[in-house]
Amino acid sequence: MSDTTTPTAPGPGPTHGRTKIYVSGPQGVRVPFVEVALADSPATHGAEPNPPVRLYDTSGPGGAVTEGLPALRRPWVVGRGDVEEYEGRRARIRDDGRAAVRRDGPAPGAFPHAGRRPLRAAGAPVTQLHYARRGEVTPEMAFVAVREGVPSELVRDEIAAGRAILPANVNHPESEPMVIGSRFLVKVNANIGNSAVTSSIEEEVEKLTWATRWGADTVMDLSTGPDIHTTREWILRNSPVPIGTVPIYQALEKVDGAPEELTWDLYRDTLVEQAEQGVDYFTIHAGVLLRYVPLTARRTTGIVSRGGSIMAAWCLAHHSENFLYAHFEEICEIMAAYDVAFSLGDGLRPGSIADANDEAQFAELATLGELTGVAWRHDVQVMIEGPGHVPLHKIAENVTLQKEVCHEAPFYTLGPLTVDVAPGYDHITSAIGAAVIGMHGTAMLCYVTPKEHLGLPDLEDVKQGMIAYKIAAHAADLAKGHPGAQSRDDALSKARFEFRWEDQFNLAMDPGTARSYHDETLPAAPAKTAHFCSMCGPKFCSMRISQDVRAYAAERGVDVATAVELGLKEKSDQFRASGSEVYGRASTT
Amino acid sequence: MSDTTTPTAPGPGPTHGRTKIYVSGPQGVRVPFVEVALADSPATHGAEPNPPVRLYDTSGPGGAVTEGLPALRRPWVVGRGDVEEYEGRRARIRDDGRAAVRRDGPAPGAFPHAGRRPLRAAGAPVTQLHYARRGEVTPEMAFVAVREGVPSELVRDEIAAGRAILPANVNHPESEPMVIGSRFLVKVNANIGNSAVTSSIEEEVEKLTWATRWGADTVMDLSTGPDIHTTREWILRNSPVPIGTVPIYQALEKVDGAPEELTWDLYRDTLVEQAEQGVDYFTIHAGVLLRYVPLTARRTTGIVSRGGSIMAAWCLAHHSENFLYAHFEEICEIMAAYDVAFSLGDGLRPGSIADANDEAQFAELATLGELTGVAWRHDVQVMIEGPGHVPLHKIAENVTLQKEVCHEAPFYTLGPLTVDVAPGYDHITSAIGAAVIGMHGTAMLCYVTPKEHLGLPDLEDVKQGMIAYKIAAHAADLAKGHPGAQSRDDALSKARFEFRWEDQFNLAMDPGTARSYHDETLPAAPAKTAHFCSMCGPKFCSMRISQDVRAYAAERGVDVATAVELGLKEKSDQFRASGSEVYGRASTT
Repeated sequence: MSDTTTPTAPGPGPTHGRTKIYVSGPQGVRVPFVEVALADSPATHGAEPNPPVRLYDTSGPGGAVTEGLPALRRPWVVGRGDVEEYEGRRARIRDDGRAAVRRDGPAPGAFPHAGRRPLRAAGAPVTQLHYARRGEVTPEMAFVAVREGVPSELVRDEIAAGRAILPANVNHPESEPMVIGSRFLVKVNANIGNSAVTSSIEEEVEKLTWATRWGADTVMDLSTGPDIHTTREWILRNSPVPIGTVPIYQALEKVDGAPEELTWDLYRDTLVEQAEQGVDYFTIHAGVLLRYVPLTARRTTGIVSRGGSIMAAWCLAHHSENFLYAHFEEICEIMAAYDVAFSLGDGLRPGSIADANDEAQFAELATLGELTGVAWRHDVQVMIEGPGHVPLHKIAENVTLQKEVCHEAPFYTLGPLTVDVAPGYDHITSAIGAAVIGMHGTAMLCYVTPKEHLGLPDLEDVKQGMIAYKIAAHAADLAKGHPGAQSRDDALSKARFEFRWEDQFNLAMDPGTARSYHDETLPAAPAKTAHFCSMCGPKFCSMRISQDVRAYAAERGVDVATAVELGLKEKSDQFRASGSEVYGRASTT
Repeated sequence: MSDTTTPTAPGPGPTHGRTKIYVSGPQGVRVPFVEVALADSPATHGAEPNPPVRLYDTSGPGGAVTEGLPALRRPWVVGRGDVEEYEGRRARIRDDGRAAVRRDGPAPGAFPHAGRRPLRAAGAPVTQLHYARRGEVTPEMAFVAVREGVPSELVRDEIAAGRAILPANVNHPESEPMVIGSRFLVKVNANIGNSAVTSSIEEEVEKLTWATRWGADTVMDLSTGPDIHTTREWILRNSPVPIGTVPIYQALEKVDGAPEELTWDLYRDTLVEQAEQGVDYFTIHAGVLLRYVPLTARRTTGIVSRGGSIMAAWCLAHHSENFLYAHFEEICEIMAAYDVAFSLGDGLRPGSIADANDEAQFAELATLGELTGVAWRHDVQVMIEGPGHVPLHKIAENVTLQKEVCHEAPFYTLGPLTVDVAPGYDHITSAIGAAVIGMHGTAMLCYVTPKEHLGLPDLEDVKQGMIAYKIAAHAADLAKGHPGAQSRDDALSKARFEFRWEDQFNLAMDPGTARSYHDETLPAAPAKTAHFCSMCGPKFCSMRISQDVRAYAAERGVDVATAVELGLKEKSDQFRASGSEVYGRASTT
């Protein structure tokens, strides 16, 4: 990979002290990073230069929301010569839900540039899995190879084997390619979306931008309220990351919330509607089989997945097999024509510690494994959704079993929450489980915000959820030994040890918060260069003492080991003499 | 154990909707709990009563700070007939640090009832280990047996074997007995204490009360600033939990912050001073040996323990072995005379991911194992401090090795932080590590607050640190299968499933926050009984759908399994007919 960098103005990300750059790679790709420039070490630490640190960047190119993002991938998609532009499905008023039907008109405030003619496969599947299997490294794969710092061939191999997915609907050219698989950096998904009770289109687009600013690798639009279609259009046109949805939510809106009225035709039409808009992956609860529903009857918390409960209700009402399962091959054909990836939903995931790893959960998982094979026969990419609420000692079993029965398709879990008793703090109860399940090989973590179980997240909740999950994902990356993952930790710890406060802040996941916490007790500018902080005060800093130990050895041209081992009494006398200064009897700063 | 309960007014704990009760046990002990009364299940769920849930309570009896807490344990201590009251050490102005020396007077605002004559052993050791070894179940052990819901003999056995400690200085009779050991509930310590830059006595006492209100099992007073002796007196007289200190901090203050001036006599005098006040455990960095110091020279972050760096500096300055190691037997004699427990300090713990599990760390651990044996010969209780910063995949090794080389003495770890890159969020980076190390058998977790690395915690930071760590400890308790640990989760999840919102809030770790998050979107009183929340809105609730599935079966006198298995078509038709109501086309409250 060529490595010439083109610094530009900082993007919309959390960029205090940071610069957005693009790194060029094969096939003309230009991959965004945020670069943190670091100061030289102080003279006491050898005055050495510290190389800049590059951070993975999901914040996108930015720009006016009404314009949408540039269609980065359009030339690649069209250039492959395997898609056709076509008229597309005719919009219906009920696409925007019950409120639209009642007023007999679509949502006000349509996206100004909506109505672009959609693309679909002209013949063979247009999925990244299809290309990978035939040995082709697409520009999308080249892009993620640079992004992850791994060889392109590894990306292709993992996708071809089904162990990774690269969600990239041909109708979402705005997205910057990313990969989800256990050999790559652990990813984080942020859920947004309105409900019947709250939120507007503007708020949801703002949440999207905000989530990617804090590092969301994908975003799911889980809207169930008014203006579903229009909201999604705004989100897709402004999203630099893949967008996932749960199509059954919109389908249910179209039948006024009555699951027994759902039909395959209506659902199929909804899939096409969303595929044409550019949704990159669909959560589909095709594993909630009629015979599994009774397994949930004696659970502490029954069925907690919305999609799962909708399908269970439909199955019971019709006493028929889940129509998503019955029509699974047809669903595959649609997904293959747009490159929509499956996120096979865990409709029977446990909703409490008591229900973890039970028969219902694992019965469904086995069916998801069966469906994975079917999707792969259609060249459709697949990931598998997982729980939920799981105590720490039962987490590993989830991953082991999922790998086995789902043939190593990437695992995508919601947390899991490791206790039930801390509503208001479920970003923490679940970050614990997320870090551990990530360490065991889960490829993407769906965040949980502090509002889980209590209400819909606002912007601050989105931020708190994202940071907790970026921590969990990074903890898992370190544990898995992902190449380069530790360099940021090492750079920050070195900055900390050398009292380069500004570097420490700029390398932090949330520079503004780190800076403001520091400044609460030591706000003055000199404190940013002070060799202590308010935790211990100027005379009591272990970092300084430790540095003095090192400096003592360096000054005298011997290392400390030698000094001690040779038992040079005079050396210790010298240290003692210099020690008066070490502990700062003179005033500091 | 007898189980008569005596409801009293709610204590100072987070007691909205909760009642403080005392459960009577053998030897006349009365053990505090917080009891959460629960509503009956609604008619849709069988209208069954839900038994109250009892929560472990550390908040103490409360009362006027100027009076101090009642001396609960005084009759037990005196009743054993093995202590003597004596004149005690003469107070010195420098006990309150450099500021006191400068003004030539002790801290203003002495505790009004200070000066009680101290107790010490009249002959044989007065430690809980001594009693346990001779087969005696003390009232302290009986108290913790009730508190933990385990047999008294288990408590005695674990203490006798050194696998658990019950910190209980004879001069801290205000403390309510608690136990630290891997067979018991995982405990959480909160650090408080002033520094040269911040805080007052009042603030530190307020932090103590606040920390125990949020569940702190022990509190360490890490003051390094002015008025150390006087601050500690206020803290001890008002603490219902054991208090730990790092005596070298005060000793260093007495020599004006110059470690090379520290002497054994000065340190010994400080130990006696603090033992007479009632400190329950001392962190002593006796494992930082001269020959280990060079092992830290090439670390990324050197020595990050304050105590460790002080001792390292002393060793180098004098080119002599650590005087804490050299005088360890004499230290044991002092601790045995008051029942102060050792918390053998990990002065060489890693301060960054890069330094985790290195030679310096494990060399010191081996020495701590050797010292454990020495302390046990003196009947002194011991726990072992552990890291620090450790990536997830290196955590288990810490516990395995500690158990082996320290003969299963309880492990007490600071986090560990699992990443270095999130200053401002280290309560989360470390709660992940704490939960995992707790699952592997660590007995007590030292909390980390959001201010770690940046400043001293304020009250809000103490709360956030405590909640993150109570979550971590509870996650570990569930993973270890501690008897009864899951009952709170089960009760909360059942309340959640049955839409008993008030019960859900009252069972939460932070009822006020849970309630306020819920109320942000649905503030009206009827929403507290509504069968939905703002996350999904009234028409879309998976919990309701799941309940409807169950209700459907119950109403018809067959369970769902039977209905499905028999393939009763008419049953599904009925469900379909009733389904219209299920999804609330009628307006919902």
